Amino acid sequence: MNFSSKKIERAVEEISRLPGIGKKTALRLALHLLRRPEEQSLALADALIDLRQNTGFCKKCHTVSDTELCGICASPRRDASIVCVVEDVRDVMAIENTGGFQGLYHVLGGLISPMDGIGPGDLHLDSLLQRLEEGEIKELIFALNTTMEGDTTNFYLYRKVKNLPIALTTIARGIAVGDELEFADEVTLGRSIQHRIPYEQSLPKP
Amino acid sequence: MNFSSKKIERAVEEISRLPGIGKKTALRLALHLLRRPEEQSLALADALIDLRQNTGFCKKCHTVSDTELCGICASPRRDASIVCVVEDVRDVMAIENTGGFQGLYHVLGGLISPMDGIGPGDLHLDSLLQRLEEGEIKELIFALNTTMEGDTTNFYLYRKVKNLPIALTTIARGIAVGDELEFADEVTLGRSIQHRIPYEQSLPKP
Repeated sequence: MNFSSKKIERAVEEISRLPGIGKKTALRLALHLLRRPEEQSLALADALIDLRQNTGFCKKCHTVSDTELCGICASPRRDASIVCVVEDVRDVMAIENTGGFQGLYHVLGGLISPMDGIGPGDLHLDSLLQRLEEGEIKELIFALNTTMEGDTTNFYLYRKVKNLPIALTTIARGIAVGDELEFADEVTLGRSIQHRIPYEQSLPKP
Repeated sequence: MNFSSKKIERAVEEISRLPGIGKKTALRLALHLLRRPEEQSLALADALIDLRQNTGFCKKCHTVSDTELCGICASPRRDASIVCVVEDVRDVMAIENTGGFQGLYHVLGGLISPMDGIGPGDLHLDSLLQRLEEGEIKELIFALNTTMEGDTTNFYLYRKVKNLPIALTTIARGIAVGDELEFADEVTLGRSIQHRIPYEQSLPKP
């Protein structure tokens, strides 16, 4: 692209380094900011600097947190004996939005993926094993995505902890509530039959 | 969304004010920046501030420019007697990339759109009329998009300048080079037959 301004070229360059944003979209965003009041660009820039310089991670569960211990880990109302293992912060937010989980989390910060050069050492696995050794945790819920990387990470973790006196569970896979059977993929439908549950359990709790 | 950090909430808020970016994408971008080296976020923020505070517009053609007069307007090699009227800076870049236009531009900065509250007074029309009055311009090329807004703006401009001793032209509409006739829409195909040109004109220049 031929830019008539070095400044817009640099802005496009930086914006297009974000994932999923190409040069054309970056240019559209840059021109949008140029047309808007200056405050909007400054507020955006300030939020980005503040985010990167001042946001930290919870030292216990590694979720994004402004404080040393995140609100979930610090809450006395949460059940510290159940820990849900997730890939990243978005998964924590998704589960928190259901309002149905009262335990704690452990954010791995990624999945084992030899193709991308990510090994077990790059994830927050050691700190999870350390938490398990402290003895307070009675159940570990695997809630990683069912991709090859997720399954690999699940299995790696399983082999590390299988001899500990801890219940190991995984979230239920099956037909989504509201979905029709005829459009479900075979693997999911197959699993949902294989892992069927007593009908009474599926009723709403009184 | 439940955010575990106020800073990430603010960053998501600011990022999602950009056009075409929702809360989920904004969160993905914010988490991406958190995982990357700090320099990337700072470089992005700095480029945005620099863009907004120091980029100006060419006082003649209103394209984005770091200098008072843009490189195109300032070049002695361009033909100042032909001016191409476009909607925004992206159109200038698109035409410049063809390398086939040696005239100057005039960026309107939008199109007349009563639905969006944009009238003729919001566009750089007065400065175009002023350029025309100076007498140097012999031909005005309308290169606005063929939307209702584009056609309205074309017609408004046409009525303002039709009595001036200036050739008024519009870019050719027709079947794109390489496209197949059977898949072309009827309006385009109809126009391309109506505005057919002598075969010799379509041959590459020696």
